[in-house]
Amino acid sequence: MKHLLGIENLNKDQIMNILETAVSFAEINQRQIKKVPTLKGKTIINFFAEPSTRTRTSFEVAEKRLSADTYNIAVSGSAIQKGETLADTALNLQAMGPDAMVIRHSVSGTPQLLTEIMDCSIINAGDGFHEHPTQALLDAYTIWQRKGGFEGLKVALLGDIYHSRVARSNIYLLNKMGAHVSISGPGTMLPKEVEKMGVTVEKLPKYAVQDADIVMMLRVQNERASNLLYPDVREYSRYFMLTPELLKLAKKDALVMHPGPANRGVEIDDVVMDGEQSVILEQVSNGVNVRMAVLYLLLGGSDK
Amino acid sequence: MKHLLGIENLNKDQIMNILETAVSFAEINQRQIKKVPTLKGKTIINFFAEPSTRTRTSFEVAEKRLSADTYNIAVSGSAIQKGETLADTALNLQAMGPDAMVIRHSVSGTPQLLTEIMDCSIINAGDGFHEHPTQALLDAYTIWQRKGGFEGLKVALLGDIYHSRVARSNIYLLNKMGAHVSISGPGTMLPKEVEKMGVTVEKLPKYAVQDADIVMMLRVQNERASNLLYPDVREYSRYFMLTPELLKLAKKDALVMHPGPANRGVEIDDVVMDGEQSVILEQVSNGVNVRMAVLYLLLGGSDK
Amino acid sequence: MKHLLGIENLNKDQIMNILETAVSFAEINQRQIKKVPTLKGKTIINFFAEPSTRTRTSFEVAEKRLSADTYNIAVSGSAIQKGETLADTALNLQAMGPDAMVIRHSVSGTPQLLTEIMDCSIINAGDGFHEHPTQALLDAYTIWQRKGGFEGLKVALLGDIYHSRVARSNIYLLNKMGAHVSISGPGTMLPKEVEKMGVTVEKLPKYAVQDADIVMMLRVQNERASNLLYPDVREYSRYFMLTPELLKLAKKDALVMHPGPANRGVEIDDVVMDGEQSVILEQVSNGVNVRMAVLYLLLGGSDK
Repeated sequence: MKHLLGIENLNKDQIMNILETAVSFAEINQRQIKKVPTLKGKTIINFFAEPSTRTRTSFEVAEKRLSADTYNIAVSGSAIQKGETLADTALNLQAMGPDAMVIRHSVSGTPQLLTEIMDCSIINAGDGFHEHPTQALLDAYTIWQRKGGFEGLKVALLGDIYHSRVARSNIYLLNKMGAHVSISGPGTMLPKEVEKMGVTVEKLPKYAVQDADIVMMLRVQNERASNLLYPDVREYSRYFMLTPELLKLAKKDALVMHPGPANRGVEIDDVVMDGEQSVILEQVSNGVNVRMAVLYLLLGGSDK
Repeated sequence: MKHLLGIENLNKDQIMNILETAVSFAEINQRQIKKVPTLKGKTIINFFAEPSTRTRTSFEVAEKRLSADTYNIAVSGSAIQKGETLADTALNLQAMGPDAMVIRHSVSGTPQLLTEIMDCSIINAGDGFHEHPTQALLDAYTIWQRKGGFEGLKVALLGDIYHSRVARSNIYLLNKMGAHVSISGPGTMLPKEVEKMGVTVEKLPKYAVQDADIVMMLRVQNERASNLLYPDVREYSRYFMLTPELLKLAKKDALVMHPGPANRGVEIDDVVMDGEQSVILEQVSNGVNVRMAVLYLLLGGSDK
Repeated sequence: MKHLLGIENLNKDQIMNILETAVSFAEINQRQIKKVPTLKGKTIINFFAEPSTRTRTSFEVAEKRLSADTYNIAVSGSAIQKGETLADTALNLQAMGPDAMVIRHSVSGTPQLLTEIMDCSIINAGDGFHEHPTQALLDAYTIWQRKGGFEGLKVALLGDIYHSRVARSNIYLLNKMGAHVSISGPGTMLPKEVEKMGVTVEKLPKYAVQDADIVMMLRVQNERASNLLYPDVREYSRYFMLTPELLKLAKKDALVMHPGPANRGVEIDDVVMDGEQSVILEQVSNGVNVRMAVLYLLLGGSDK
């Protein structure tokens, strides 16, 4: 495995290998000194063409804890402003000899394109409406640690499925691992023929949440959808916000997950977000473990 | 001591401990190789929600010379733009396991708030009109090195006291250490009941400067006060700029200080700024020493 | 040699010394672990007051591969926004004890000014319409590696000579090394009395390219020239774009060079840019080697 472009093309063994590798990095991240020399001297470029705190910082923390040299490139202030094509910028960066590039881009397929023109490892940190594989992997790690496995779990996935690369990556992963995904969201936010992805579509959230082991909320991405796809936020919240009442329909020990950043009072109620069933911050912590594992596996560090 | 939120709650011994610790870092900063392994493997996040060159770079230099791993987060490009609350951003960063967070924010009390929701050390790099403790500490270090102590010194503090967190932190510190502070500024720039802070208020700068050991200028912060609090800049300069004539009223060996960035020709005359009594650039150098000391003391590095 | 401000004041031996030093860094950049401890503990500030991906990243890669501590300062978010003069910002950065500052600025002569007020080494990464010495050095390295020398080579330099610091630095360097430069561009883009720089001026590109060993294209810098100096882009391309037909006039083994970022279809045709004679990406790779050599020579690292 040289690149991580998405979950769609991974098999069950590859996924479990990443999760199992992350366990040893979780142990390192509990130490007083959370740093290992594994990737010392490696050059990793974080190229984020969309704003991000969580994912960019999480990758940077993972890289520095592996002792790699890291470079952050944002589109503002970059050659793209001067009219260079993305492919030319990529080729130029390639010429400086990086070992890996972590890329976030608003256009689906950009990471795939980069693998065709660059020599280094490409890690997709979110491309358009396509995939966000490390998010699905950290979600999987969280579920695996808490539930001991995936087989037979019911996962409710609520919100804007259509515009969510997180949803797409999670559906691929959970299906592969033997969980069952029930989705619900406003009709305008569901992809056409979504059933072909192997999920159950429920008109009302309560049917998706009923007896679920996991309730996974998606962010209402107002910055991505230029036209609102529902009348107003209050309308959305009334029908699709995860409230304590709605959560009661799930299993008693159901986990509440959210990829963040959350819009409190829009897609998730404060009480649920901060409640005992919420593992939202655990997801963030696990993100560092999983990204360290991915970087380690792709860049072939030899002494962990 | 786990956090550094302000000077108000420090006692004299704690202040002297920081200054004395800074002496050994000053020595390191004179070496050819200005770097020690003290905080190797520690994760420090610099979260600056207001623009800053001097303070941010000074902290970053201090952190790297202590061998810590540093992360710079600005608000532009961060999750806050996507509607996340500051508290949620902070909790997410906490989940990645930082050892300390250096925070600058336009809202007074933000660093205090963060101590309540994060586990790591919080260092206030300036919050609203409240405090800027490392600035006061580097000012104190400069005075201590130059004057040998604080007891009985007269410090003139001129300008916009009301909008200045630098003024507030310095007044707390200088009072604790036994110096006397005389302030002067336009009436609209003085806090109500400022005398309760233990300072002498003078209508005219010349009375504050008279026989002073230290003349400390404050920056006219046009970017912070949305409405000007005085008729125009020329009017301000005419009455409150530190000119060579005004400085002559101070003691012959009085020091001229300014936290920067200075508006030349507004609050300070070029001749004074660049004159022999000015220790303004010494303050900047001392900033690195003092911030290394603060980081060392808070993060409990063991081998200096 | 303490600073690198331009090519104009270097002699042939100094230039060859830099190129020869770069050879050993080229070897390091071929290794699995591309990192040496040469500048460990050194503080290098990259101060870019104009947008740049290529040059800034190239310097940062060079610095980190030499194990220096690097700091990136952009003008947005800096004290200059608060009204501080560039000289004061520089003095403040100097007070933090850097070993070198890499500066890009829109005003010609800024790096020279900084040498007068700062103690550290100053490296010009491009100043106004003046010089961009590391670009000319990496171009020279590329020519030297490919052609074995400079004596008697004919170099065609096409485009906006007037607004190009790259052109100026290359003309100085190539003249010193014994190559001959033929320039061609729209009349509005040629400096007055350009012949005094020791170049041949050709009205039509075909005469400049005729039998050339090197065809060096310049970028049409629309962002720098506020008024267009030619009727429109199509008009420019028709006469001055490097097409396969134009390139055929050069020697059969002529190299095609471009400092980037390129405007495909404006000054250079896709087929030429991506063709076999193009060494454009080699230039970028060589940039890291040459900048490592410059930093090594200026900062006097002792153990390579």
